[in-house]
Amino acid sequence: MTKTRIEHDLLGDREVPADAYWGVHSLRAVENFPISGRPIGEIPELIRALAAIKQAAALANADLGLLSAERRDAIVAACEEIRAGQLHDQFVVDQIQGGAGTSTNMNANEVIANRALEIMGHAKGEYKYLHPNEHVNMSQSTNDVYPTALRLASWRGLQNVIAALASLRGAFAEKGAEFAEILKMGRTQLQEAVPMTLGQEFNAFAITIGEDEMRLAEAASLICEINLGATAIGTGITTHPDYAERVRARLAEITVIPVVTAPDLVEATQDCGAFVQVSGVLKRVAVKLSKICNDLRLLSSGPRAGFNEINLPAKQAGSSIMPGKVNPVIPEVVNQVAFEVIGNDMTITMAAEGGQLQLNAFEPVIAYSMFRSVSHLIAACNTLEHNCVRGITANRDVLKETVRRSIGIVTALNPYIGYAAATELATEAHLTGRGVYELVLEKGLLPKERLDAILRPESLTRPQLFVN
Amino acid sequence: MTKTRIEHDLLGDREVPADAYWGVHSLRAVENFPISGRPIGEIPELIRALAAIKQAAALANADLGLLSAERRDAIVAACEEIRAGQLHDQFVVDQIQGGAGTSTNMNANEVIANRALEIMGHAKGEYKYLHPNEHVNMSQSTNDVYPTALRLASWRGLQNVIAALASLRGAFAEKGAEFAEILKMGRTQLQEAVPMTLGQEFNAFAITIGEDEMRLAEAASLICEINLGATAIGTGITTHPDYAERVRARLAEITVIPVVTAPDLVEATQDCGAFVQVSGVLKRVAVKLSKICNDLRLLSSGPRAGFNEINLPAKQAGSSIMPGKVNPVIPEVVNQVAFEVIGNDMTITMAAEGGQLQLNAFEPVIAYSMFRSVSHLIAACNTLEHNCVRGITANRDVLKETVRRSIGIVTALNPYIGYAAATELATEAHLTGRGVYELVLEKGLLPKERLDAILRPESLTRPQLFVN
Amino acid sequence: MTKTRIEHDLLGDREVPADAYWGVHSLRAVENFPISGRPIGEIPELIRALAAIKQAAALANADLGLLSAERRDAIVAACEEIRAGQLHDQFVVDQIQGGAGTSTNMNANEVIANRALEIMGHAKGEYKYLHPNEHVNMSQSTNDVYPTALRLASWRGLQNVIAALASLRGAFAEKGAEFAEILKMGRTQLQEAVPMTLGQEFNAFAITIGEDEMRLAEAASLICEINLGATAIGTGITTHPDYAERVRARLAEITVIPVVTAPDLVEATQDCGAFVQVSGVLKRVAVKLSKICNDLRLLSSGPRAGFNEINLPAKQAGSSIMPGKVNPVIPEVVNQVAFEVIGNDMTITMAAEGGQLQLNAFEPVIAYSMFRSVSHLIAACNTLEHNCVRGITANRDVLKETVRRSIGIVTALNPYIGYAAATELATEAHLTGRGVYELVLEKGLLPKERLDAILRPESLTRPQLFVN
Amino acid sequence: MTKTRIEHDLLGDREVPADAYWGVHSLRAVENFPISGRPIGEIPELIRALAAIKQAAALANADLGLLSAERRDAIVAACEEIRAGQLHDQFVVDQIQGGAGTSTNMNANEVIANRALEIMGHAKGEYKYLHPNEHVNMSQSTNDVYPTALRLASWRGLQNVIAALASLRGAFAEKGAEFAEILKMGRTQLQEAVPMTLGQEFNAFAITIGEDEMRLAEAASLICEINLGATAIGTGITTHPDYAERVRARLAEITVIPVVTAPDLVEATQDCGAFVQVSGVLKRVAVKLSKICNDLRLLSSGPRAGFNEINLPAKQAGSSIMPGKVNPVIPEVVNQVAFEVIGNDMTITMAAEGGQLQLNAFEPVIAYSMFRSVSHLIAACNTLEHNCVRGITANRDVLKETVRRSIGIVTALNPYIGYAAATELATEAHLTGRGVYELVLEKGLLPKERLDAILRPESLTRPQLFVN
Repeated sequence: MTKTRIEHDLLGDREVPADAYWGVHSLRAVENFPISGRPIGEIPELIRALAAIKQAAALANADLGLLSAERRDAIVAACEEIRAGQLHDQFVVDQIQGGAGTSTNMNANEVIANRALEIMGHAKGEYKYLHPNEHVNMSQSTNDVYPTALRLASWRGLQNVIAALASLRGAFAEKGAEFAEILKMGRTQLQEAVPMTLGQEFNAFAITIGEDEMRLAEAASLICEINLGATAIGTGITTHPDYAERVRARLAEITVIPVVTAPDLVEATQDCGAFVQVSGVLKRVAVKLSKICNDLRLLSSGPRAGFNEINLPAKQAGSSIMPGKVNPVIPEVVNQVAFEVIGNDMTITMAAEGGQLQLNAFEPVIAYSMFRSVSHLIAACNTLEHNCVRGITANRDVLKETVRRSIGIVTALNPYIGYAAATELATEAHLTGRGVYELVLEKGLLPKERLDAILRPESLTRPQLFVN
Repeated sequence: MTKTRIEHDLLGDREVPADAYWGVHSLRAVENFPISGRPIGEIPELIRALAAIKQAAALANADLGLLSAERRDAIVAACEEIRAGQLHDQFVVDQIQGGAGTSTNMNANEVIANRALEIMGHAKGEYKYLHPNEHVNMSQSTNDVYPTALRLASWRGLQNVIAALASLRGAFAEKGAEFAEILKMGRTQLQEAVPMTLGQEFNAFAITIGEDEMRLAEAASLICEINLGATAIGTGITTHPDYAERVRARLAEITVIPVVTAPDLVEATQDCGAFVQVSGVLKRVAVKLSKICNDLRLLSSGPRAGFNEINLPAKQAGSSIMPGKVNPVIPEVVNQVAFEVIGNDMTITMAAEGGQLQLNAFEPVIAYSMFRSVSHLIAACNTLEHNCVRGITANRDVLKETVRRSIGIVTALNPYIGYAAATELATEAHLTGRGVYELVLEKGLLPKERLDAILRPESLTRPQLFVN
Repeated sequence: MTKTRIEHDLLGDREVPADAYWGVHSLRAVENFPISGRPIGEIPELIRALAAIKQAAALANADLGLLSAERRDAIVAACEEIRAGQLHDQFVVDQIQGGAGTSTNMNANEVIANRALEIMGHAKGEYKYLHPNEHVNMSQSTNDVYPTALRLASWRGLQNVIAALASLRGAFAEKGAEFAEILKMGRTQLQEAVPMTLGQEFNAFAITIGEDEMRLAEAASLICEINLGATAIGTGITTHPDYAERVRARLAEITVIPVVTAPDLVEATQDCGAFVQVSGVLKRVAVKLSKICNDLRLLSSGPRAGFNEINLPAKQAGSSIMPGKVNPVIPEVVNQVAFEVIGNDMTITMAAEGGQLQLNAFEPVIAYSMFRSVSHLIAACNTLEHNCVRGITANRDVLKETVRRSIGIVTALNPYIGYAAATELATEAHLTGRGVYELVLEKGLLPKERLDAILRPESLTRPQLFVN
Repeated sequence: MTKTRIEHDLLGDREVPADAYWGVHSLRAVENFPISGRPIGEIPELIRALAAIKQAAALANADLGLLSAERRDAIVAACEEIRAGQLHDQFVVDQIQGGAGTSTNMNANEVIANRALEIMGHAKGEYKYLHPNEHVNMSQSTNDVYPTALRLASWRGLQNVIAALASLRGAFAEKGAEFAEILKMGRTQLQEAVPMTLGQEFNAFAITIGEDEMRLAEAASLICEINLGATAIGTGITTHPDYAERVRARLAEITVIPVVTAPDLVEATQDCGAFVQVSGVLKRVAVKLSKICNDLRLLSSGPRAGFNEINLPAKQAGSSIMPGKVNPVIPEVVNQVAFEVIGNDMTITMAAEGGQLQLNAFEPVIAYSMFRSVSHLIAACNTLEHNCVRGITANRDVLKETVRRSIGIVTALNPYIGYAAATELATEAHLTGRGVYELVLEKGLLPKERLDAILRPESLTRPQLFVN
């Protein structure tokens, strides 16, 4: 039989397992929210952020003479263990929870209190020596702790997304260099347009990802703004006048994240704008990754009756029935992550809109959605880079042939023969199946040397002076 | 100088133009909601529905002895004019409006009252003879009139969407028949899979559209449920016990729409579920039309370095710079309408979720979004049918060649040589560029006659008995 | 050291753990898709559906003389174990995967083949006796197996949602009966409107949920349409002409789900419309549950300075800082699940729109999103019913007082004194803070007995005959 | 009979009205895209931007010796007329159009060419003197002109949104100052929490809007990056090497917008990330405005049985049936605009994701959606400010009473009596209906002077030193 201890809250007494670091408040939440089956302990960045905040608060409270050195030291030690990765399995409340994050905060208060009690030489549950609410949560409320924890964890998550994108960008840039000399037909609206190089095409992927990294960095800088010191609704009730600045400084020391305190804590406590903004930028990243993967799938369509311009590395058998079939499975999984991130953004948007008065009660689902977006995007970038992009090869012969047969090169003649005459020429080429080059010569529209000069690959793929 | 008359409401007196059929309530709304610049008069189905409801109410009230024959006749005559298309320019309030549709209902009450007053031989504004609220709105509230009007107008709109889809379906089915004998390679994940006919491909478009018609018809049947008689919150306050049934019967007579009264009017007055459902089905239609248009754009990609399997009719010059370029502009516009409809569904979803207690105050934006979805989908179907599908032609030679060169036909050999051996064969064909047919014979895997029998077109595109 | 066996696919040889029932195809997929960390084995309905399909196919193939009795029996035995809940931990591929579900299907083929081999007395991996593709997957393709599995699993999921809603409906209906005699003010646009009973309010919740059950049942009936027999693209390549009907009949026997074969398998293989439809109806359910929960939170707002009309049962301490605070945590978690479901619908919509040509490659993320919507909605309904609705109590004194003080009862006088006069009366009541009842008597607008008759509670909350 | 002239394109000859400035390309587009009934001429900022670009291109081309002074001057004069607001009715193509904006660009080329021809003394249609494509569109493509025009027009639109928000912010800040001394209960999760001032509440609205202004300004700065000089796909084909910089400089001169040329024009031509970002920030603005309006509606709920803390100015009769009812119609319309903007963001997201290879064909629906979001948000801010916020008044007596009766002030005692004891106290107050103040004194928990000091209003609404 499991040994238990008795804990008490405003609803009465309850037994909790004697060896549990969590207590009655966590127990109630586990019973109330059996939704996703995913405990908050599965988001390590969030647990670490909570521990960092509790540690910073204990230090700040002690600095201000409100907490004894003994309690401070025990709390700090417990928090450092958690930040090192221990006890995460004690964070048992469901990620999707009512109560604006109170259960998450309570879970943290209880685990830290009980671990600190042990460190102090007491038994778990002996809250008279160190109380989850009175000491671990001193000068705090869920309403400043929880949003701050989300922000710290998001900041770390965004750094990891940026790093994954940067690495992926490198892979595309390398391919851009590798393919720099391969001429191909660019396409608009799925119709051949004018020539470009395959290198330009891959380099554009690298550049577009680089822009997203910058946008994420900007969004990350916004999310460093915290509301610690706000307590319940932003008025700072129960806090010392110097607490907000002290806890911020301590938190910056501990996390090495450049946190700043929001200028108005009432506003900061109710506003989820920064999460909407971050999610909006993650959505942008998703949209662009999805577009890139759509392109990779198009360019590698085939193997014989498609565009067939590039080859993605074969990663697994493509079919349970069609022997030898190889499919673009890696881009496909990235597309799907992108669709998920876009859906998550909708969830976050609705949750943010639903906030009322001095608090948004729906931050848990914001967290649930955002941390999935972050972790899935990182995983998607990694598999895209290592299982796909780095192994892409070009079908040089196919590409060369498409340029040779193309009608689109007629555009280069616009400045010499005019749009109207060029239209006639293109139409004739289309209807007869003949080449533009031969038709120009046959009709004597331009002398051969001049035509050759105009159609040199290096001229076709960048601005050029008029050829006389 | 414009002549005016004075009207009065709970905020005081206001001048309105003497020749306006609308009155002070409409005037306030015009001033309060200068949002979209699109008056409700631009949605003829909505205006007609409002008039039908007012007419039915007048008849029902007279039937119950609550309204004099003179007033009844005048109201009915005014409503019939409006249903015939007159006076729509007097419906001046903005489509996007606060107030749960009250301004729309007031606008209708005022226009009908003033026109009825004229018919009775009085001047506009002489409300002592016929009052917008007391007589035109008798036994009614915005909260039953407005949702009912939206439902009637939606029902008509859905019938029109169904008709447009049916016509488009016919065009696809005709192409399916026209292309019935043309063999091509089917594709999964943009990679060639196994053979099919182009007719099967186009016929599938017809069938999938037919399914959407059925789903829309089901949704339309749900939207026939009305809450007339509910008045303010569903309790029927101010109504005669027989009114709800009487007005329903009168409305069914007038509109020839099979309206039924909701079993619980309190529920019906607050619930926007049917609009969410209808919009969800319109979203489904949009998703599928967009997928079809994506396919049309893919299959017609080219002209030389794409799939190049079908030709869409040229409808306009495709480029201001690239002579002779022709683009799939019609499918592209349908894609965009689809994206708009999906966005509208999100707006409708949020508006429905935002309803509170006994009423949803956000029905105007539901109407605004749904009527745009409806009218744009109809227009998109029409242009897709007449400017694109009916003119599609097949590139028979290209299609034939893709089957000949295909590796995918190896799948047909599975039952004879097994998946593992077939995989080896496909891999060799891929690496060497050689044909599956010749490799099978060269290796003596199957005798020629048997191989030919297995690979007959009519065998490849449907289930078949084992070939001995 | 772990013992291994060697398996082979088109990419070469790989070691897999000797005791693994999954094989090389699953291994590749695990490596390619390290996205969500959630294996498909965590969705028991999906695994059971896959096993049922494989079992039905083996029976049908044997019926048609294509599979030996020994292999049939072994496959059937393995599938029945899986349907009984065994071996789910062998379904190791990530829920979010590229490849249109091929990895899921391969995982099933491998697990069933290896378990069947054991049953036949062979070692795992001895595929010469029973091959994952050639025997377990006989007459099948991912492209008919996977969508069919999703449909079976969705059907079961929808039945469970319906059951959870029905139970919740019962709880609301009981409260409706309990509160049948309690008069209160109905509200539109957050402003008091006219009287109703609290029973009418709760009964409307029950009724609106009942409508959603019907919509879900309709959607479930659509999702019973399967495409087994389609194989790769719907042409039925590699199948016997009688296979499609035979496998359908076997599947119906095994699952007792009324599955029907789609009339056109090419269309059915590429179309995700039914998933969009089902998700759209789940979104509707979410919207309405969220609206109900918004209402519960509003009506219980307080404890002293809010609406304070009802009390939700206290389920946990509401605040880490505010002693004694109790919050509406259960409705809040339901709101959040609703937001998630709405986001999931967006993901599903995009995935459906992204399908190309003969297949939708993005069905895995449709499955991932839909099964979360289903399971979270069920959990949300359950906690809402048991932890909230069943314990709701009414503040009868508060409700009574709001009716007594209300201005809104003036509406009941409309038929007697007219809208214009009633407006004057309401305005005076508002400005002076006085009661409508006393003002009517003071002004002599109606005799007391008549006024009392008009304002009887039973008259105010339903249609009534004119009081003379 | 209307006089006509004949024009020619690749599809053949067509008659256009002799007095039309638009030509055959516009005519085809009007016929192909009868979707929304809203011509591009209804978006003045877009038309002005197109004219500015054409003017800048003509100047740059002339600077580089590619265009004669006579043609340059005529084009410039025509463009200046359009920028001054003339000829917008000649921009006749539908806002929702296929073809990636080609029809819009063609429409501009034709109108400018024909007006310039008149200025040069020629008849409309005499394109041998000045050709829409060869001269007006010289060195340009739709694919650089159209995105640049969208960016310029968006930039102007964003400045106007910022200005509308700034003005609204001012109104909230004034109310914040006006209400600075009014104590009230703050609420979290719709339950009373701890005291604050009504001024703090309104000031938070001002601050949160100010943050959105900053985010919009950042987004606007990103949208100044243009791709002029890219021509068809970013390679600059047909352009002079100095053209891109020259046209940028000319455009900056003309528009006084700090445009910069994108570092990689291939990337810039296909990327819609900036529109997704801008729309995402507009969505953020919408979310926050909606939250503010939800709060205003809640705080003004009543008139007698709601929160009843503030009064919104009466703007119109609230009901067609309920006399004297006044509703929060202005916040309601803002909510609805917010829902529309969120839906528009979804449309823009899907359109951006749908781009393929070197171009996004779906920019027209991005433009259609974004310009509606912009104009409706501006209108919503204006009506919210002038018809609502500036007229809000406070119910001081109600607010005072809620603080007096509140249990939530017990939080202020935490530092003195501890969370556990305070919980007991709160529970007793809740169960007995008694006041916290009297209970503390009765139990002798704190001396009266100390309690009074702790509960001073100025102490309750900000951090405070410990009271000894």
